[in-house]
Amino acid sequence: MSKADIGLIGLGVMGANLALNIAEKGHTIAVNNRSTPRIDAFVEAAQAEGLGERVLPEADLVAFVQSVKKPRSIIIMVKAGKPVDDMIEQLLPLLDEGDAILECGNSLFSDTQRRFDYLKPKGIGYLGVGVSGGAEGARHGPSIMVGGSKAQWHDAEAVLTSIAAKFKGEPCVAWLGEGGAGHFVKTIHNGIEYGDMQMIAEVYGVMRDGLGMDAAACAEVFKRWNEGPLNSYLIEITGHVLEAMDGESAAPLVDMILDRAGQKGTGVWSAIAAQQLGVPATAIEGAVAARSISSRKQERIAAEALYGRRQGKVDITIDDLEQALLAGKIVSYTQGFSVIASASEEQGWGLELATIARIWRAGCIIRSRFLDQMASAFAGDAATNLLMVPDFAELMKEASPALRRVVSAGALGELPLICLSSSLAYFDSYRQARGTANLIQGQRDFFGSHGFEIEGRGADLHGDWPSLIEQAAE
Amino acid sequence: MSKADIGLIGLGVMGANLALNIAEKGHTIAVNNRSTPRIDAFVEAAQAEGLGERVLPEADLVAFVQSVKKPRSIIIMVKAGKPVDDMIEQLLPLLDEGDAILECGNSLFSDTQRRFDYLKPKGIGYLGVGVSGGAEGARHGPSIMVGGSKAQWHDAEAVLTSIAAKFKGEPCVAWLGEGGAGHFVKTIHNGIEYGDMQMIAEVYGVMRDGLGMDAAACAEVFKRWNEGPLNSYLIEITGHVLEAMDGESAAPLVDMILDRAGQKGTGVWSAIAAQQLGVPATAIEGAVAARSISSRKQERIAAEALYGRRQGKVDITIDDLEQALLAGKIVSYTQGFSVIASASEEQGWGLELATIARIWRAGCIIRSRFLDQMASAFAGDAATNLLMVPDFAELMKEASPALRRVVSAGALGELPLICLSSSLAYFDSYRQARGTANLIQGQRDFFGSHGFEIEGRGADLHGDWPSLIEQAAE
Repeated sequence: MSKADIGLIGLGVMGANLALNIAEKGHTIAVNNRSTPRIDAFVEAAQAEGLGERVLPEADLVAFVQSVKKPRSIIIMVKAGKPVDDMIEQLLPLLDEGDAILECGNSLFSDTQRRFDYLKPKGIGYLGVGVSGGAEGARHGPSIMVGGSKAQWHDAEAVLTSIAAKFKGEPCVAWLGEGGAGHFVKTIHNGIEYGDMQMIAEVYGVMRDGLGMDAAACAEVFKRWNEGPLNSYLIEITGHVLEAMDGESAAPLVDMILDRAGQKGTGVWSAIAAQQLGVPATAIEGAVAARSISSRKQERIAAEALYGRRQGKVDITIDDLEQALLAGKIVSYTQGFSVIASASEEQGWGLELATIARIWRAGCIIRSRFLDQMASAFAGDAATNLLMVPDFAELMKEASPALRRVVSAGALGELPLICLSSSLAYFDSYRQARGTANLIQGQRDFFGSHGFEIEGRGADLHGDWPSLIEQAAE
Repeated sequence: MSKADIGLIGLGVMGANLALNIAEKGHTIAVNNRSTPRIDAFVEAAQAEGLGERVLPEADLVAFVQSVKKPRSIIIMVKAGKPVDDMIEQLLPLLDEGDAILECGNSLFSDTQRRFDYLKPKGIGYLGVGVSGGAEGARHGPSIMVGGSKAQWHDAEAVLTSIAAKFKGEPCVAWLGEGGAGHFVKTIHNGIEYGDMQMIAEVYGVMRDGLGMDAAACAEVFKRWNEGPLNSYLIEITGHVLEAMDGESAAPLVDMILDRAGQKGTGVWSAIAAQQLGVPATAIEGAVAARSISSRKQERIAAEALYGRRQGKVDITIDDLEQALLAGKIVSYTQGFSVIASASEEQGWGLELATIARIWRAGCIIRSRFLDQMASAFAGDAATNLLMVPDFAELMKEASPALRRVVSAGALGELPLICLSSSLAYFDSYRQARGTANLIQGQRDFFGSHGFEIEGRGADLHGDWPSLIEQAAE
């Protein structure tokens, strides 16, 4: 067998599925794993799918590296953190100048940036690759967000393009920028996903608790919504989740599942990145907060006992909820893309928002009709703020009155709408030419001499507070 | 002159005022500064206040250290970051075992922790001291949050106790915990301050834009509120800021000040710390977001042009606003103290929430009647969640209906209430025994096999999604 087109280390679920995907698309792939039984199992799986002859198993790392065509593209798919650094050190003496490591895990983008900077002077390419779509996506077509060494990206481009999800024939993969750009964009993708899921949970809460709808009725609504402007993978699967029955209790499964959500960290990473950049991301923060509160089940039970259980219906229509979700989504994506734009500026990545929206249209968890609209809108507009893009401004004008009604009803009806209400508040803050920070600047000058600005008179002005207090005392 | 009771390096505004405060309370103090003219100016200022004989100026660092009584307490008040590390390195060879450095700037608590860990094995005490109250506070009585080496705290205790603000005779100073505890608590103090200021700005916005009140009318309201449950320094100065007139334009000063708020970073630090701890702090995050949005003045002007200017009055009473602010404040303090409690647990600091509330009752920016109530409430209760402390639960039950009306009116009336609405949403999430995260867990299992829990049947259960989709397709 001649040398392989590409190599892959780490045959966990994601790695194995990526490797099968690659082989299926006609490429030969060398595979390696720390434990040999897993290599054997993978070979068996590949053979079962008729892909055995394109797989080159190598338990020895040296032989593995030598079995890959030069310039080599080596995918590593190991646990984030130290295992990645260890693997890089193991590979480093085995690679030749011009070879590249493609790290396809969920790494913190600053780690990726550090590794990229470390390998660059050694002549080894480093690509931090965000892969979205879960195990299914890895096997049949993920969305692939590539960052790092541009030259080496071209060596792997054909393979990655062939395995990526396709949206109307267009592959959902792109090299986005240098260094940690790919993993950064993947992180914010996940943050946006948190927001989408939380806002869906909030409207579900209004249906269940405020409108008294059962799971089946809710499922019908989501199925219908999936035919309209909210059409998306998450809306689709929400319909499925809501219609699932629990065999044991003969109750809807969703009613049996404990209301305690887990999180694996990318939501928190997104929120911290946004804070560090100084870009508001209240939808992501709200979603992270909601999951955190959900995990405090015992505390919530005690709080309900103390404050009493909410009761009663709210006066909201299903159409209001659909429009509210759309409006909340516009704000959430506005924030997420603002975070990306700001990081791009700070890091000099030159990220194109239209490209990012384009490669999220298929393969990833947040894929949606909405992203197709966004891809078009950003392509034709220099704006980085979705709220200011004409098509979306029109959508927002239409949808925001319903968001107002829903937030208002939730506030009065004791229904928690942590993301939807913060999205509305963000919108109303953002669209207000004259806000209320003038008061804050007055306060800050009063107690800390921080100074304020008066237009036409310059900044760093101060109030004559002591004499004011004196007058007041007289 | 015999040796000084304490030494201080760094005679900027804060350092000089702290030194004057110390001398005024009867202690002798050695002072040092990198630039000699500033030492001379300080000596002059001290003499002008009749405190010259208690001041021992030493331009030479070696002589300065030697002029302080052993075991030495040396306050450093230099710029946060590298200057602090540099100063520590300069002092290190000059100190004897048992001496201590008291760093009184606004350092990041993790830096303080690192310095504490670095000096501990060398036998040098390190105290990270949060000092709140601005220049005035430093001179006449700040709130002092001490963290670090407990043994050396006792060497400085008499001096720090004498200069601290007093609340009904009780000094607002305490050693809170080891390492970075003091600076951590100071950071969260500032985060809470952000929330207080933003919520005040929000109700001011409702008065100005929703009720059509002029600055003088708003000032009257805040003055009246300062006599009631909201009694606090920030409410008091808000009244002063709102009544100040601008001589040049003969308009209220607050109407002339540009609505673009600055921030110096402790709000962001608080938000990041909360995210890292996994504790929701939506009020702090909302306040940071609001300041960030305020700084995008040109964008806001463009957005208002696109979306149209809000108009019309809202149907809300001043009493509703007072109660809404109180309810929002309860949630914001609940969150802030939860962040502190969580950090304490993670770091093993053993922080006492009652003590923290106690030393914030005077001297600092957030001082208030509310904190006095909190100090009592926490002292008599093991709860770390303010919403669960009986007295505050009663307050919340009374005040939350008004918060609902205000958030509802703001949503419908296009008035941004970023903090107040997120506080309400937090409350309603927290008091809900059965939330909506069951749906999120269903979604996460659907697309990522993350598993869910059913009570009585265990965790890590999975739905039979493929067959479900198959059925649906039939």
